[in-house]
Amino acid sequence: MTSTAWTANTRLRGVFAAGLTLLNEDLSIDAEATIGHTRWLLSHGCDGVLIFGTTGEANSFTVDERLGLIDAIGRSDLPRNRLMIGTGCCAIPDTIALTKRALAIGVHGALLLPPFYYKNVSDDGLFAALAQTIDKIADPRLRAYLYHFPQLTGVPYTHAVIERLLKAYPSTVTGIKDSSGDFANMKAMAQRFQGFDVFSGNEEFLLDVMRVGGVGTISATCNVTCEATQRVYSNWKRAEAESLQATLSAQRKAFTGIAVPPACKAILVRHGGRKTWLTVRPPFTRAQPEAVDALMARLQAASFALPALAA
Amino acid sequence: MTSTAWTANTRLRGVFAAGLTLLNEDLSIDAEATIGHTRWLLSHGCDGVLIFGTTGEANSFTVDERLGLIDAIGRSDLPRNRLMIGTGCCAIPDTIALTKRALAIGVHGALLLPPFYYKNVSDDGLFAALAQTIDKIADPRLRAYLYHFPQLTGVPYTHAVIERLLKAYPSTVTGIKDSSGDFANMKAMAQRFQGFDVFSGNEEFLLDVMRVGGVGTISATCNVTCEATQRVYSNWKRAEAESLQATLSAQRKAFTGIAVPPACKAILVRHGGRKTWLTVRPPFTRAQPEAVDALMARLQAASFALPALAA
Repeated sequence: MTSTAWTANTRLRGVFAAGLTLLNEDLSIDAEATIGHTRWLLSHGCDGVLIFGTTGEANSFTVDERLGLIDAIGRSDLPRNRLMIGTGCCAIPDTIALTKRALAIGVHGALLLPPFYYKNVSDDGLFAALAQTIDKIADPRLRAYLYHFPQLTGVPYTHAVIERLLKAYPSTVTGIKDSSGDFANMKAMAQRFQGFDVFSGNEEFLLDVMRVGGVGTISATCNVTCEATQRVYSNWKRAEAESLQATLSAQRKAFTGIAVPPACKAILVRHGGRKTWLTVRPPFTRAQPEAVDALMARLQAASFALPALAA
Repeated sequence: MTSTAWTANTRLRGVFAAGLTLLNEDLSIDAEATIGHTRWLLSHGCDGVLIFGTTGEANSFTVDERLGLIDAIGRSDLPRNRLMIGTGCCAIPDTIALTKRALAIGVHGALLLPPFYYKNVSDDGLFAALAQTIDKIADPRLRAYLYHFPQLTGVPYTHAVIERLLKAYPSTVTGIKDSSGDFANMKAMAQRFQGFDVFSGNEEFLLDVMRVGGVGTISATCNVTCEATQRVYSNWKRAEAESLQATLSAQRKAFTGIAVPPACKAILVRHGGRKTWLTVRPPFTRAQPEAVDALMARLQAASFALPALAA
């Protein structure tokens, strides 16, 4: 494990899948399968994997269920320095408990949703929520990434709040996953905040975000586009980057109008995954076979190829 | 307790405050003060109190903290048949655990937020979430009230979903708190769904909702307007109802532009409550004294008078 341990200089960057949480038939977490899928992603194009993002159905699990998977990862051989864990909850003590457990197993990167129930939250209130969280965790190893997804949270991380956080916690507040789909915002943050690592929230913006000083992407669809996404990342300074990105963007666009987590699970099952992996927690529903047929056709038209699963 | 026990015929109706959760200085729940405030509401105009609604900062507490207050209520003398408890969470197992505990202490009315993280949820997905919840609770005593608050959840209870739920669970799905502020929706539901109890989500619509077949209001501002609200409810069939409602609506409108939970806590403190009650969890912030001054002036212009607190 020493070669994969986190050091003070570790910075997460590159291609991250927002990993799926694979379930048993009874909707409990299949930790072994989830860890296996994570390992597969890490050997098929992903520089890292986000555990418990939106795609990982984080908020559909209890804190105890989430702690259970974190502990299972702690017992696994997954490289800690290639993982980020989503820990942001509505209730600050939950965020603190999950983040502490991530740190305890050696994962220093935590992705923090804001408390997302209340809307029209003041900058003071949002800052206080993050400050209280970081203060109570009180661990210099923490690398806090902000999870900006206003379409789902209704609570944007404004630049004013980011600036206050960076000033108050310069060695802790490390970066952001911007899932707004607003490239102008990604660019503005990358240019304004030195040393603040901007990940685009989907791979459609990967080349663009690298060109303005971003560090990579953390994306739902990377559960299946992992290798194509890595081709863009590895070659972003080269001439072929444009055409690689065009192919990748076409693959991403194939998912328009379909719920990504059930769809990605269905694609894995069609490529050799276990049937139980189709399972999702409500409010998601399983992808309809006809919808998956149509998705696969669109993906194949965009030169999509998934490597066979080890399973 | 026998006189206040729930029977099969109990229907919640009338004036409900969405009760404040009062905190200690360290942000933990002050169960004694919260129970005391609930008791005060029940003797100052409220027919009932909702514990852990939006105003009660429900989602800012961990499930264990919420179970702790429910247990404390279970040890108290509060009349079970005048309480409703908000139990809806993003994670279905949390909703189940909280609802079972409410039932265990004799509170049968549970207010169910939909899982509120994901948006653009399908009717099938929302129905499945509620069905799974009700099926796993498997308790014929449960009276499930839907919590419709699209501005905060982004997940409306559509009429199509309500109809399916009423068909599948006719003796369980009992009513709704409609906090949308859309009176046309309250009216349409009251007229379309027989035996489905519609509460307006704030007292501004109390007279209107009673006139179209609704059963009352569950409101944040009733923490302080409780007596004025009861005057409308008790007299809604009389000639003076219009002018009583006009006064009440003016009081409600005094809160425009101010976060209601901190503001109500501040009003209680100005009327004799303990200073620690000003405390709120982020992302709320304490009400600013000047803002409370202005609010009090607006309220007094609207004939507001709060009875002195027992404290």
